[in-house]
Amino acid sequence: MNAKEQGRRRFLKSGAALAGLAVGGPPSASGQPMSADVSRIPPYGVRSRFETSHRGSGRLHSGQSPLQDSVGIITPNPLHYVVSHGAWSPDIDPQAHRLLVDGMVDRPLVFTMDELKRLPSVTRTHFLMCAGSSYVTRGPRRNARTVQETHGWTSCAEWTGVPLSIVLDEAGVQDGASWVVAEDVTKKWTVSIPLAKAMDDTVLVYGQNGEAIRPEQGYPLRMLAPGFEGTRSTKWLRRIKVVDEAYLTRWEITVYTNLMPDGKARWFQFEFEPNSVITFPSGEQQLPGPGFFEITGLAWSGGGAVSRVEVSVDGGRTWADAQIQEPVHRMAHTRFRFPWQWQGGEATLQSRCTDERGDIQPSLAELNQIWGVDNEYWTTSTNRVQHLNAIQPWKVDRDGSVHNAIWES
Amino acid sequence: MNAKEQGRRRFLKSGAALAGLAVGGPPSASGQPMSADVSRIPPYGVRSRFETSHRGSGRLHSGQSPLQDSVGIITPNPLHYVVSHGAWSPDIDPQAHRLLVDGMVDRPLVFTMDELKRLPSVTRTHFLMCAGSSYVTRGPRRNARTVQETHGWTSCAEWTGVPLSIVLDEAGVQDGASWVVAEDVTKKWTVSIPLAKAMDDTVLVYGQNGEAIRPEQGYPLRMLAPGFEGTRSTKWLRRIKVVDEAYLTRWEITVYTNLMPDGKARWFQFEFEPNSVITFPSGEQQLPGPGFFEITGLAWSGGGAVSRVEVSVDGGRTWADAQIQEPVHRMAHTRFRFPWQWQGGEATLQSRCTDERGDIQPSLAELNQIWGVDNEYWTTSTNRVQHLNAIQPWKVDRDGSVHNAIWES
Repeated sequence: MNAKEQGRRRFLKSGAALAGLAVGGPPSASGQPMSADVSRIPPYGVRSRFETSHRGSGRLHSGQSPLQDSVGIITPNPLHYVVSHGAWSPDIDPQAHRLLVDGMVDRPLVFTMDELKRLPSVTRTHFLMCAGSSYVTRGPRRNARTVQETHGWTSCAEWTGVPLSIVLDEAGVQDGASWVVAEDVTKKWTVSIPLAKAMDDTVLVYGQNGEAIRPEQGYPLRMLAPGFEGTRSTKWLRRIKVVDEAYLTRWEITVYTNLMPDGKARWFQFEFEPNSVITFPSGEQQLPGPGFFEITGLAWSGGGAVSRVEVSVDGGRTWADAQIQEPVHRMAHTRFRFPWQWQGGEATLQSRCTDERGDIQPSLAELNQIWGVDNEYWTTSTNRVQHLNAIQPWKVDRDGSVHNAIWES
Repeated sequence: MNAKEQGRRRFLKSGAALAGLAVGGPPSASGQPMSADVSRIPPYGVRSRFETSHRGSGRLHSGQSPLQDSVGIITPNPLHYVVSHGAWSPDIDPQAHRLLVDGMVDRPLVFTMDELKRLPSVTRTHFLMCAGSSYVTRGPRRNARTVQETHGWTSCAEWTGVPLSIVLDEAGVQDGASWVVAEDVTKKWTVSIPLAKAMDDTVLVYGQNGEAIRPEQGYPLRMLAPGFEGTRSTKWLRRIKVVDEAYLTRWEITVYTNLMPDGKARWFQFEFEPNSVITFPSGEQQLPGPGFFEITGLAWSGGGAVSRVEVSVDGGRTWADAQIQEPVHRMAHTRFRFPWQWQGGEATLQSRCTDERGDIQPSLAELNQIWGVDNEYWTTSTNRVQHLNAIQPWKVDRDGSVHNAIWES
């Protein structure tokens, strides 16, 4: 059932009306007296004390976005996911920070932050995602209960910065150059990307959702290679070196690879495939009872714009188009919505993304076929699974409880 | 000079190169050792200690967005402007909050927040602005030095909520109804809007940039009437009453009116006219020396989408099209950019917005003509000036200092 086919005044008139809806007089007062210290507006605001959504705790160097609470497509800066192999954030003074551009260039250059900010800028909305979202669960999302745990290593923001191509043009890229190596201030994080990507849409980012990028996102300067796995977007960027081959750095030939059944590993699998997940209802949420609900979620692809999202409420037997939030940005989270009358029976909800290239998000079984593996493969602890984009089913039980059903699909 | 006419590799090759640009070896290390308490990622993140941008302080019930530091079109939630006539924020428990819909409806209804969130939702990017941006300066922006002071009472966010039309359709609007009155929990804030606007694009908002709306923006529920003066978008919303006439409430017939020279006041001037301002370079900023700069700013209109922004660097004698950031949202801030080679002489920079209706932002002199007033009018303390959308000139002196030149224009 398409959203557009829904008539108006449907939500209360259906057999399953909104639970708990009262009719009558004015509501009880819910505005409390002011607390003592709110007589002046905070210069830099804080959220309501009733809001407790967070990136998780207990992990040393990562935090996952609470997608179950997300609305729209922007991830607020305090809730952007983090994965850092090492200290989560160097404490960098932007006045002292410098960017070096060297290697196979005519004019090696050093930029201050002020100099970078004088150059022509762009602002674009893009997702970032960790390639290894499923790794820690030993098998795809096996021990993950919530959408924060299954997909929380992705976020989306409005990024502002200087196109890397402008900086490289200033330096003058020499003939024969084919790769760019990006290094951070700790010198622990160095990755290679093709020169073509660097000259296409890669941005040197200093702004995130209208303010300076956050420390854990690379303050004061990071690279952003849209649609590529997050590991390619070096944070706390200090150096761009133009070279003629990939540098085969530590992380890009170990963790951020896919070990296949034949014993070989896939390297440099940059671009993310189409992906999506329902954020409501999702794992560990509780429906109050039968009636109307708006199913909603996020879809994205490293291959460009999301062109279609389908939703199934019967475990994948039938699918129907979801409504997509406009405007759709390329390589960005795309919010989808789907009206649903829950009759109270068991139901398995899932979404499927198609991107502008026509690529379609596979089920776990289909992904196994594509990769030439089986479920046994996933349970071997040495398999470091990157780029998992399998359809995520959520099972709604008769009592309204929702749980992760990927292993039942 | 249009942005597209700019060639590549221009920024360093021009006579006025980037100041301070060094060439050579690697930069000095700017990554400091980790401080002691950053071994774990904060569950709800904070910005760098080097970032100090804020909404101003010292005002009891208002705060202005620091537009001079803005990038892109999103205002981060902690920096969204605030104007509150009364306490800046009631402390509302969302579990206890209720929305009453009554008046000329077939079925009076009471909603909990959970019930509202089950209804079909929309997400849209819109600006908000206080109608009286110029009031406190006694004469348009007379004592305002920075863009935060001249235009800081506007912000832009991605808002999520339920279309008011859906809620009104549930209740069943009766024949003869023509207005809607929105009341907040303090019962101090009650405003009227036409029913046509309520049924068109007005939204009951609970989400702001991907999380719950902030306390000072009306947590847990506010109205948002896109393109209308901010006062029409009641915060801490407790009641929607459908009626057959405007209620002529306290604020809408006193402060939020325009006293004209004939002694009559304009009432119910809802929709904002086309507006824009250059945010860099802007008042009190300092250019380090001649060379290339990217002029940038924001444009918006209550009448729909911004269709054109022109920039003048010679005090309004000549104008050229600025580059507009895509996608352009209706009734939303629109970022514009304009390349500029500053030769070191005096220059007056200003921008001019045209919206999709073809309306063009006027200069102060033109606005005086439209309104039938003169500069004397502005200096009378009893004039409460709303909807001021005059072009804002910034004067760059030979020493690179920038100041507000609206009274010189």
